[in-house]
Amino acid sequence: MPKKLIVQKYGGTSVANTGRIENAARRVVSYKKRGYDVVVVTSALGDTTDELLGLASKLTKSPSEREIDMLISTGEQVSVALLAMAVHKLGEEAISLTGAQVGIITDSSHMKARIIDINVARIRKELAEGKVVIVAGFQGMNMDREITTLGRGGSDLTAVALAKVLKAEACEIYTDVAGVYTADPRIVKNARKLDRISYEEMLELASLGAQVLQARSVEVASKFNIPIHVRSSLSAKVGTLITKEVKAMEEVLVSGITVTKGEAKVTLRDVPDKPGIAARIFGDIAKNGINIDMIIQNVSRTGHTDLSFTTTASDIQKTMRLVKKITKSVGAKEATFDKDIAKVSVVGIGMRNHSGVAATMFRALASKKINIDMISTSEIKISCVVRKKKAEEAVRTLHKAFKLGR
Amino acid sequence: MPKKLIVQKYGGTSVANTGRIENAARRVVSYKKRGYDVVVVTSALGDTTDELLGLASKLTKSPSEREIDMLISTGEQVSVALLAMAVHKLGEEAISLTGAQVGIITDSSHMKARIIDINVARIRKELAEGKVVIVAGFQGMNMDREITTLGRGGSDLTAVALAKVLKAEACEIYTDVAGVYTADPRIVKNARKLDRISYEEMLELASLGAQVLQARSVEVASKFNIPIHVRSSLSAKVGTLITKEVKAMEEVLVSGITVTKGEAKVTLRDVPDKPGIAARIFGDIAKNGINIDMIIQNVSRTGHTDLSFTTTASDIQKTMRLVKKITKSVGAKEATFDKDIAKVSVVGIGMRNHSGVAATMFRALASKKINIDMISTSEIKISCVVRKKKAEEAVRTLHKAFKLGR
Repeated sequence: MPKKLIVQKYGGTSVANTGRIENAARRVVSYKKRGYDVVVVTSALGDTTDELLGLASKLTKSPSEREIDMLISTGEQVSVALLAMAVHKLGEEAISLTGAQVGIITDSSHMKARIIDINVARIRKELAEGKVVIVAGFQGMNMDREITTLGRGGSDLTAVALAKVLKAEACEIYTDVAGVYTADPRIVKNARKLDRISYEEMLELASLGAQVLQARSVEVASKFNIPIHVRSSLSAKVGTLITKEVKAMEEVLVSGITVTKGEAKVTLRDVPDKPGIAARIFGDIAKNGINIDMIIQNVSRTGHTDLSFTTTASDIQKTMRLVKKITKSVGAKEATFDKDIAKVSVVGIGMRNHSGVAATMFRALASKKINIDMISTSEIKISCVVRKKKAEEAVRTLHKAFKLGR
Repeated sequence: MPKKLIVQKYGGTSVANTGRIENAARRVVSYKKRGYDVVVVTSALGDTTDELLGLASKLTKSPSEREIDMLISTGEQVSVALLAMAVHKLGEEAISLTGAQVGIITDSSHMKARIIDINVARIRKELAEGKVVIVAGFQGMNMDREITTLGRGGSDLTAVALAKVLKAEACEIYTDVAGVYTADPRIVKNARKLDRISYEEMLELASLGAQVLQARSVEVASKFNIPIHVRSSLSAKVGTLITKEVKAMEEVLVSGITVTKGEAKVTLRDVPDKPGIAARIFGDIAKNGINIDMIIQNVSRTGHTDLSFTTTASDIQKTMRLVKKITKSVGAKEATFDKDIAKVSVVGIGMRNHSGVAATMFRALASKKINIDMISTSEIKISCVVRKKKAEEAVRTLHKAFKLGR
């Protein structure tokens, strides 16, 4: 009978220094001693990736993406080697492997490569020899043996993808928080750790800025039905299990409240209200690689309308240069932007089958005189744009209104 | 006609920070603009390698050598990526390559691997596309694609080996000193930069602690007759050319004075003076991987003799444990050691055909009342062991006696 196999991923804070690395090693060894085959994925130590990017930005404003990947992939190579040494010290056999050595084959999109295939032969061979296999997260290689990286949070993706191809019994993501919370505990004091959450909800939370798990890794886990256990590397407590939807989940109306501050609102005033204009505007924007989140179009007045959308605040200069050109070409009056906004969202599978979540949300915000700028909804989410300075009050208000506290 | 090809190696101090990296990039680009194909080899930034080894030593006293190579090979990968970006910034095409990507094939002796073969196809392809090729020094891979490193100073070896296989016109070694000196300028104020020196002399200087070039790389250069130009990365001045012996060199009696402080003297007293005893002693020592430098055996008194040798001071505990065992087994009286010594050497091709160098050396030391503990000689070198506290005075005295000053 093949042994039970577990994939464990340790994030940057969980390997931030030699003390934390020893801590991670002890946990790895405890699973090994309990009879598991253990495959470990690590991120770079603490802020290493940002420090390396800082060096690059001192040299050039537009570094080659291929060279960035050469540069930052070293961070994970350092952490896997150190973790292997720490496991050896505890008397277990272990071997570290780079993405290239494993055979994590990606496309050639440097800094945001997609995994095409994973060769499991090397990992299987090392496991069969009784070793803990420690894989550098976040990285792979393309068909030309060039080093690639998978984008921010890519180590989560490495872990989930390995869990899939190795048919792991579980995929544990170790981080510096105890799990997924009903809201950011720094904002809401009595935020509650969720024991279980669906992939769909986690996807909304991840993309809304809960910063626990990278969205793409949740998508992959969902697609292949791989349970993910998000938990703290600093305690033995159970964290949050992310699984497919189960009946009991639907009884919970709202699972969590999130807030995102990294967006800006762009408004085009007095756009001629003719068919095809919106398509032209957003077609141009998409062609230039600018991500749009919410879109609002007001009721037409005298053949003209106002059009607003939100986008990433850090790209606002580039976006405005483009939007100003578009404004001219479609005959709109002017384009303005507003970075002083935040998006507050209510997420929950239960709201699919219940009305009244939106009403409760709007009523709660109104009770605190928090004005709503824009609204967007999906099947399991309602988002409102509010003033940035009101954002945290809005989160606390909604957390209370939906009775999410401990 | 193929273009002229130059190999340039930049040491750790020459890429210690982004300013130095930009400086190196400017020099690389200046050669490219003068019509050269340029292949660059870099060391890790400043003290990176020692910092990484420091992390490892916090985790374990006996780290796996395979994992050490995984760990420290990242240092050069960082520096090549950054240098490539700096060259791009200056408008030239460049690509960085790890040892594995080049195809620098080594044996499997981690931390001290020997180069078996270098695949030049990738470098030739990139050069043909007009790129500067920037190769991570100090590293390679074995037949199983495991990362290996070549030992301290291994980047020099990478550069010389690439110069050989690429049939380079020249191999330039950029460092933080202006070239090879008649003595350490920190000890002897008027030490003079040598314009030219033979491989043989450089080998003696390198192994005697001149710390400019790794001895193994000089051996390779000598074997394949590759001229090495050691020069400063911080000035445009010509440095020291290391070449095969030419007639003019023989006219120079002595090229330089060196001092080594990292040795200790071990003495076995009252060793029975019987055939085979020395063979037995040094056989045991060699079997245990302890390097011996000088050996002295005094005249036998009443069937017993004293035997002294010098070895690396850092290994003295291990050596003494072994020597005490040997002392007992051969019936010698006792074993003592002395770490308070230094070895001062006079090196020069010219002394081959001239007598009197030894006499001048001994007379000069005697004039300053510097006592000589041990003496050893080779065809182009005479070394004396003196008290450590007298070492620098001895160097200055000999530098003056052989009229080596500016």
